[in-house]
Amino acid sequence: MSAVIATYLLHDEKDIRKKAEGIALGLTVGTWTDLPQLEQDQLRKHKGEVVAVEELEESDRTNAYFGKRLKRAIVKIAYPTVNFSADLPALLVTTFGKLSLDGEVRLLDLELPEEWKRKFPGPRFGIAGIREKVGVYDRPLLMSIFKGIVGRDLAYLTSELKKQALGGVDLVKDDEILFDSDRLPFAKRITEGKAALEEVYEQTGKRTLYAVNLTGKTFELKEKARRAAELGADVLLFNVFAYGLDVLQGLREDEEISVPIMAHPAFSGAITPSEFYGVAPSLLLGKLLRLAGADFVLFPSPYGSVALERGQALGIAQALTDEQEPFARAFPVPSAGIHPGLVPLLVRDFGRDSIVNAGGGIHGHPDGAIGGGKAFRAAIDAALAGRPLREAAKDNEALQKAIDRWGAIEVEA
Amino acid sequence: MSAVIATYLLHDEKDIRKKAEGIALGLTVGTWTDLPQLEQDQLRKHKGEVVAVEELEESDRTNAYFGKRLKRAIVKIAYPTVNFSADLPALLVTTFGKLSLDGEVRLLDLELPEEWKRKFPGPRFGIAGIREKVGVYDRPLLMSIFKGIVGRDLAYLTSELKKQALGGVDLVKDDEILFDSDRLPFAKRITEGKAALEEVYEQTGKRTLYAVNLTGKTFELKEKARRAAELGADVLLFNVFAYGLDVLQGLREDEEISVPIMAHPAFSGAITPSEFYGVAPSLLLGKLLRLAGADFVLFPSPYGSVALERGQALGIAQALTDEQEPFARAFPVPSAGIHPGLVPLLVRDFGRDSIVNAGGGIHGHPDGAIGGGKAFRAAIDAALAGRPLREAAKDNEALQKAIDRWGAIEVEA
Ligand SMILES: [Mg+2]
Ligand SMILES: [Mg+2]
Repeated sequence: MSAVIATYLLHDEKDIRKKAEGIALGLTVGTWTDLPQLEQDQLRKHKGEVVAVEELEESDRTNAYFGKRLKRAIVKIAYPTVNFSADLPALLVTTFGKLSLDGEVRLLDLELPEEWKRKFPGPRFGIAGIREKVGVYDRPLLMSIFKGIVGRDLAYLTSELKKQALGGVDLVKDDEILFDSDRLPFAKRITEGKAALEEVYEQTGKRTLYAVNLTGKTFELKEKARRAAELGADVLLFNVFAYGLDVLQGLREDEEISVPIMAHPAFSGAITPSEFYGVAPSLLLGKLLRLAGADFVLFPSPYGSVALERGQALGIAQALTDEQEPFARAFPVPSAGIHPGLVPLLVRDFGRDSIVNAGGGIHGHPDGAIGGGKAFRAAIDAALAGRPLREAAKDNEALQKAIDRWGAIEVEA
Repeated sequence: MSAVIATYLLHDEKDIRKKAEGIALGLTVGTWTDLPQLEQDQLRKHKGEVVAVEELEESDRTNAYFGKRLKRAIVKIAYPTVNFSADLPALLVTTFGKLSLDGEVRLLDLELPEEWKRKFPGPRFGIAGIREKVGVYDRPLLMSIFKGIVGRDLAYLTSELKKQALGGVDLVKDDEILFDSDRLPFAKRITEGKAALEEVYEQTGKRTLYAVNLTGKTFELKEKARRAAELGADVLLFNVFAYGLDVLQGLREDEEISVPIMAHPAFSGAITPSEFYGVAPSLLLGKLLRLAGADFVLFPSPYGSVALERGQALGIAQALTDEQEPFARAFPVPSAGIHPGLVPLLVRDFGRDSIVNAGGGIHGHPDGAIGGGKAFRAAIDAALAGRPLREAAKDNEALQKAIDRWGAIEVEA
């Protein structure tokens, strides 16, 4: 029987196995023991099954939060795929629809059967395809976010874009709060941005990609994205969780939108952070975003200003790059509050196939965005060579200035 | 200045006003004090503002959860609407995009300026339009959910549908976990369901509407919904939170989909229940669903199996029916674990303009779904007349049997 296996953290005052059995039935055939044999035979292949119950120790912390003594368990329930259509909304409604309202349950993982995975696209380009576009194969990529664009004009935007590119970054992304407007229209950002980066290329021989924020109403996105593809957009930034995972998949599956998609985690913090509720980050930002077709996934790094617990951040990266999955691998982009002094930690944790992403850590460099880019590039080279940053900084003034401003955390070889 | 005012529960170890100022700038113009006067003049109308900080008492419970001493405050921040496009994803990304990842913040409310509200549709039919369709003006409507349909066939579905309708319910809805399948195709459910309900109408003179679950991939929904409209679908059930609020709005705004939309709260429990994170139910399930165009909104009642705290449930209903808003009012549908004995509580709390919704409380009646419907209708009449259920049950056998099974909670007149 083909089934999706959902893993939950469950709480219950009484019998947790009984609660699990109730969920497995309630979210599939409804009832069982009181059904006549004939109906049982007919419905057997639709029936959900509890496939594992791993009881956990009682937790004072949990009891204090809920104000009652609760049993806790990690529970696995198998939902036959015959019950639902092959789309992410159906998957979410079945495994964590009504159940999410239970109030004392967290969705930790979803394991999909191999033949069912084939119904999902995964990334169109993935790490390998993006490396080809940017012509960099042997190191983590470097991306900068340009901030402070809200309220500015196109001349300001292109001038900032050039500065970022001149520092040697591989990608520049829009801030996720930059929307389509009369002063900074989507199409113009693409064309003028492209022209600015072409100028830099002619000057330096270095290609930089620009990720433009795809925004607006859901049912207008495909047309906008197709137009962006025609205009030669390099990458589409997309606030998936303000729209829906399936909207991402719809964009990915449209053959006329052959542009890499960068998933921003905006609003996902409404879903992931509680210990007791919501969805685990490795599933929501890792497995499901890759399945739906994100080529890049931004998430809070364990080290920056908006920190995600290290195990959770590594879990996201693992899900995005797991070689066992039948999908292209997606680039993990640990983000927020990153400065050059954190690069050795990032490289240790996320490896070569990741993206170092910085906003203030680039444009807040004492020498501006150009110095910031140079400092990061030097930090990446040093980290890959296993060379301490403070030593590498002796040959690189930009890196030295970055370390003077933000410090540096060295990693044991 | 036209601005959206967001209300948050904020936590911070140090200076909460400073944190709020950082948010107001960070989510708009980026920086301020270090900008030259000329740029300040240019950007002033884009700048976010902290408009209120109401400090709360320190909370042992909060400190215990986060493992540190935190200041707490209710903070209001004004975001100029000039910064973002008039759509819900832009609104969410601005007010609770990156900020949701902060880890110690909950979005409590969004107040939209009047001229900006006009960019949103609200319900197409609303309470008044639904009452016309069902021909009932003077009491809460009664809805039943038919369960146990997964794995069954059309003959079973229509026979169940008839039984529900014969008990006198005003609406019957699909279970939210019923998807489009070969055995129970969407179009056939509409046409055969309609035929079954027409038979009941000929027999009893009572109209019952059937809410069919609109499912599948996002970019195929409009076509499916248009086809449903052509086939004469009464109501579309929609799992909004497995798709996206803006997908609901897109369906509502399509003039070829002139069918009422019933929003199911599936997956919203991943977003609302934490004390410290996520989004308040009155905003997510109340204000925003109405803004986007839901004609009905299901949510956990304070009394059933999946309970929402009473104040939160009332907050949702208030947002759906608030007469001050320039939108049609939407029907509150407090749900889950409802039996006839709870009707006096529901009527006291949610009033005449609400829907009494039951699954097991109808089909689990000793006399089956027909008895269940009758018991509920009698309970509703009694509650409106201020008559105790146990007294009303003397004249109504179905109600008496329901009370014998589930009990009854009387409400002081
Ligand atoms: Mg940003
Ligand atoms: Mg249901």
